[in-house]
Amino acid sequence: MSAFAFRRRELDFQLHELLAVSRFCAHPRYAMHDRATFDASFDAAETLAAETFANHVARADAEEPRIVEGKVRLIPEVKAAIDAYIQAGFMGSAFDLDEGGSQLPYTVSQGLAWIFTAANVGTVAYPFLTMAAANLLRAHGSPAQKQRFLPAMIAGRWFGTMCLSEPHAGSSLGDLRCRAEPTGEGDYRLSGSKMWISAGEHELSENIIHFVLARISGAPAGTRGISLFLVPRYRLDAQGQPGVHNDIALAGLNHKMGYRGTTNCLLNFGERGDCRGELVGAPGQGLACMFHMMNEARIGVGLNAAVLAHTGYLHSLDYARQRPQGRRPGERDPASPPVMISEHADVRRMLLQQKALSEGALALCLYGASLVDEQAISREPAEREALGQELEILTPMIKAWSSHYGLEANYWGLQTLGGYGYTRDYPLERIYRDNRLNPIHEGTNGIQALDLLGRKVVAGQGAAFRRLMARIEASRAEAGGEPLLAELVDALGQAQQRVIRTTLSLGSVLARGEVERGLANAWVYLQMLGTLTVAWMWLRQARCAQAGLAGGATADADYYQGKLLAARFFYRWELPQIERQAALLDSLDDTVLHCRSTQL
Amino acid sequence: MSAFAFRRRELDFQLHELLAVSRFCAHPRYAMHDRATFDASFDAAETLAAETFANHVARADAEEPRIVEGKVRLIPEVKAAIDAYIQAGFMGSAFDLDEGGSQLPYTVSQGLAWIFTAANVGTVAYPFLTMAAANLLRAHGSPAQKQRFLPAMIAGRWFGTMCLSEPHAGSSLGDLRCRAEPTGEGDYRLSGSKMWISAGEHELSENIIHFVLARISGAPAGTRGISLFLVPRYRLDAQGQPGVHNDIALAGLNHKMGYRGTTNCLLNFGERGDCRGELVGAPGQGLACMFHMMNEARIGVGLNAAVLAHTGYLHSLDYARQRPQGRRPGERDPASPPVMISEHADVRRMLLQQKALSEGALALCLYGASLVDEQAISREPAEREALGQELEILTPMIKAWSSHYGLEANYWGLQTLGGYGYTRDYPLERIYRDNRLNPIHEGTNGIQALDLLGRKVVAGQGAAFRRLMARIEASRAEAGGEPLLAELVDALGQAQQRVIRTTLSLGSVLARGEVERGLANAWVYLQMLGTLTVAWMWLRQARCAQAGLAGGATADADYYQGKLLAARFFYRWELPQIERQAALLDSLDDTVLHCRSTQL
Repeated sequence: MSAFAFRRRELDFQLHELLAVSRFCAHPRYAMHDRATFDASFDAAETLAAETFANHVARADAEEPRIVEGKVRLIPEVKAAIDAYIQAGFMGSAFDLDEGGSQLPYTVSQGLAWIFTAANVGTVAYPFLTMAAANLLRAHGSPAQKQRFLPAMIAGRWFGTMCLSEPHAGSSLGDLRCRAEPTGEGDYRLSGSKMWISAGEHELSENIIHFVLARISGAPAGTRGISLFLVPRYRLDAQGQPGVHNDIALAGLNHKMGYRGTTNCLLNFGERGDCRGELVGAPGQGLACMFHMMNEARIGVGLNAAVLAHTGYLHSLDYARQRPQGRRPGERDPASPPVMISEHADVRRMLLQQKALSEGALALCLYGASLVDEQAISREPAEREALGQELEILTPMIKAWSSHYGLEANYWGLQTLGGYGYTRDYPLERIYRDNRLNPIHEGTNGIQALDLLGRKVVAGQGAAFRRLMARIEASRAEAGGEPLLAELVDALGQAQQRVIRTTLSLGSVLARGEVERGLANAWVYLQMLGTLTVAWMWLRQARCAQAGLAGGATADADYYQGKLLAARFFYRWELPQIERQAALLDSLDDTVLHCRSTQL
Repeated sequence: MSAFAFRRRELDFQLHELLAVSRFCAHPRYAMHDRATFDASFDAAETLAAETFANHVARADAEEPRIVEGKVRLIPEVKAAIDAYIQAGFMGSAFDLDEGGSQLPYTVSQGLAWIFTAANVGTVAYPFLTMAAANLLRAHGSPAQKQRFLPAMIAGRWFGTMCLSEPHAGSSLGDLRCRAEPTGEGDYRLSGSKMWISAGEHELSENIIHFVLARISGAPAGTRGISLFLVPRYRLDAQGQPGVHNDIALAGLNHKMGYRGTTNCLLNFGERGDCRGELVGAPGQGLACMFHMMNEARIGVGLNAAVLAHTGYLHSLDYARQRPQGRRPGERDPASPPVMISEHADVRRMLLQQKALSEGALALCLYGASLVDEQAISREPAEREALGQELEILTPMIKAWSSHYGLEANYWGLQTLGGYGYTRDYPLERIYRDNRLNPIHEGTNGIQALDLLGRKVVAGQGAAFRRLMARIEASRAEAGGEPLLAELVDALGQAQQRVIRTTLSLGSVLARGEVERGLANAWVYLQMLGTLTVAWMWLRQARCAQAGLAGGATADADYYQGKLLAARFFYRWELPQIERQAALLDSLDDTVLHCRSTQL
């Protein structure tokens, strides 16, 4: 198999059969598109990803970015790939036609992200971060700011970054120290250090537009004192072109376990007192602006993890189908030919587990993406609100469930290859290292769990939770009477009742103010609700596969049968874990609160 | 914290309090030792490990072995460390006095292994492999062979390797192709390739003694046709010194994800038709000879995984106690100082989970080691047989449970450090990569599961299983009435009944010949029985800690309280997983048998 392990059939299933993305074309915003234009985009992406992204994924890992004569040096294939990506118009895929984009639904743009991520997660991060930064500017910048910066970003001439963390503050952004002094000329003088800045410095683009969280002098402590600033690497001159260097120093590169193609920097702003930035949005609204984009960023991380999980699955499946070794348990003749290892029960288990976890996570992330589209085109305020609530509660699970269980899938992928999986001659060990980032960045999974149970579940008297439960119930009611579907519907219903009971009980603990106790096992809660939600995704996939089988396309029968098997696997192996998790949560086990760090 | 994360208090607890290793000194074989001589060995090992092993663990990872002018080049610190190790007499720790060793109990030698493994897993592998090879020779070599080879190996002048796998055959040794032709001069001409040979080639020692599995011409197919050969890198001359090169070519080095300090080679034997080897043991007995040593090798892998898990735990604990960030849930004042992250519930959970998994695995592996000693010194044939059975059934769990859950511990260790954990500036990401090997080598965990359920559990009408259950029951009966112990005893009893029921049911499926179905979910069985067994280990540790607390040593109160908390954590978080595993096994779920590889 080539370095590019991607299964188009799966993308078509997820986007066309399960989510029916063409339905968005009924809306005027997407009326210029239809399935054919979507598919043409996917075709083009697939070709480009195979030819210019997958070709250097191993080399970008082996030869990570380094500083040469003060500049970040990347292997040349990175720029070639990104230039081709820009040339082909993918940077503008989710932007409007009048912005120079192709105005695709968000879900379709995530389909494109899937393809490029499968090919080379490190290289595609540069355009992805730029697209996210441009999106942030579009949402919160002034008309003048947008006019000066957006076109060059969407055209891929200038790249973008997000500068949130500092060396002493990652999860606790309220403590950040980066300062902004008004210059009296309408802009600000920035000073401070920013840590973990992906794509923070490089020579891939004419300029880099940093979006920086900082505290205006005199602003209150905590999150309320944080504002958002646009800080270009090179200030714009009178013609609006990159001019003088803006006193942003590259203080060092982080040497990561994986994801090495993406340079990750420590940046010092204003070492010489001459770093200028513009306020974006209102003072004190910095975190609100950032969080507005956070749902999409977290869907991005979840999808990234799900794609790496699926890519690892396809690589290990390919290996298992071609590697002869051992015999079936009943075979006693040592002279008989060995079978392919995909015939062994435990190897099949490792493959099915990867399939169940990764395709479950893919369905979850893309379902979340489809809610972004539905919300954007809905004209009913009440429906928009309900869609927003559903997206809010799903987001921490999309990010944390997919990254936790996606990495577990990669564990089994590597294991399938045995000793070969442990070598750098096969892609599994690199994918496993790359994917290890996803439980950490964009808010660690522990933070996601607190966000889920401490905010999203209890917000509005549990409105989002009720909405989610109603959606699951509706799917159960819709699913037909085929024996397998009936098994799934029944198991999902029981699990759902269990989850509701536990959620109500935890909700009342939190409502009576026992916050520390109620949140002590928040991670277990996220695992539980996430597994229920992915079980729901598997019911949806099984139903869709049954419909496909009933449609009688014999060429696809194996594909659909595989979906049904993976659904069954998820329900028999993964879903039953909910019982133990619920029991632990019900017991309000406070072991972690009781222990002192001196006892550890 | 230095690169050397090791807690002597834990070693003293495991070896002295829990296993009371000094009791072995009552036996004449160990009468020259007492606790003081054991402790003096541990002291010396600790100093040596800190000074000459931990100092290059990061560099050995960054600058992995490479071939320069046809020779394997290692960083110089490796030889310096191993020379000091040999000088200090550690190579002979488990060998007899009259062999030049110090005749320590096996369990004590494992305590030494713990110390060096915590310091540098890659460097210490060279002497460990040599000790294992010498042990193999001692068990199966002829008196003349032992006389010619053993003293130089125990003295550390000649190193050793095990050559089992071939590029096409790892798990399926019956298919190996390496050939041995009788020369007519009493020895054999070897030809073939051997893969994954740790320490297969280097310049650390005057000679390398390879123990090679090969097939004598005309031998039957399968495992019965395999014999064991001693094949030196340099043939011995008339004076018994290394002479001419023995036609063993270094065909390449494997580039691994971790464990990089240990060179791992592809060796070609007899490319020029001039590689000579001596038969060790009887023809056709090669695999039996190797398997005789396998229990100890697998205890070694399990302990390695447990130590890496514990080392990662200590590093992450150190970080969590020193890293200020965030506030307790009730604290609303953003100007209040941040707390150390070890105060946060989910960080404590990550620390406790590491402690529960790693110290549970340490206890399991060292208990297994103590059975080796008990068996060696027992004079009762019936007791020796029972001890042997217990060791047989424990071995696959020692290897596979410790490596699977030890890696999970490292996952949480890395996660505790957030972004920093993902960088190469902190040891967690290296430990995580190093430990990823352990579920793979010395028989993959999937193979261990088949060995456990398909052989060890059912052998002798379940004699070993019954012995293990009786031992657990005895511990339950001995544990006193303190509330926590009572909770553990009760939970362990229920879990044990569940496991027995499921085992009987699976046993009857296997007994009626449904081998494929009965073994389909063997991995889940290993997880279940392993978790029960480690829960037993935690009951033993809790009881010991209670006794320590009752002893009133206030300086140790925190340490013992920590043990009780970790025991409680294991029983509330890990042990309840057995229910789901048992239910899955009871259902004889055959999803993995039903699927075809074309459906995946």
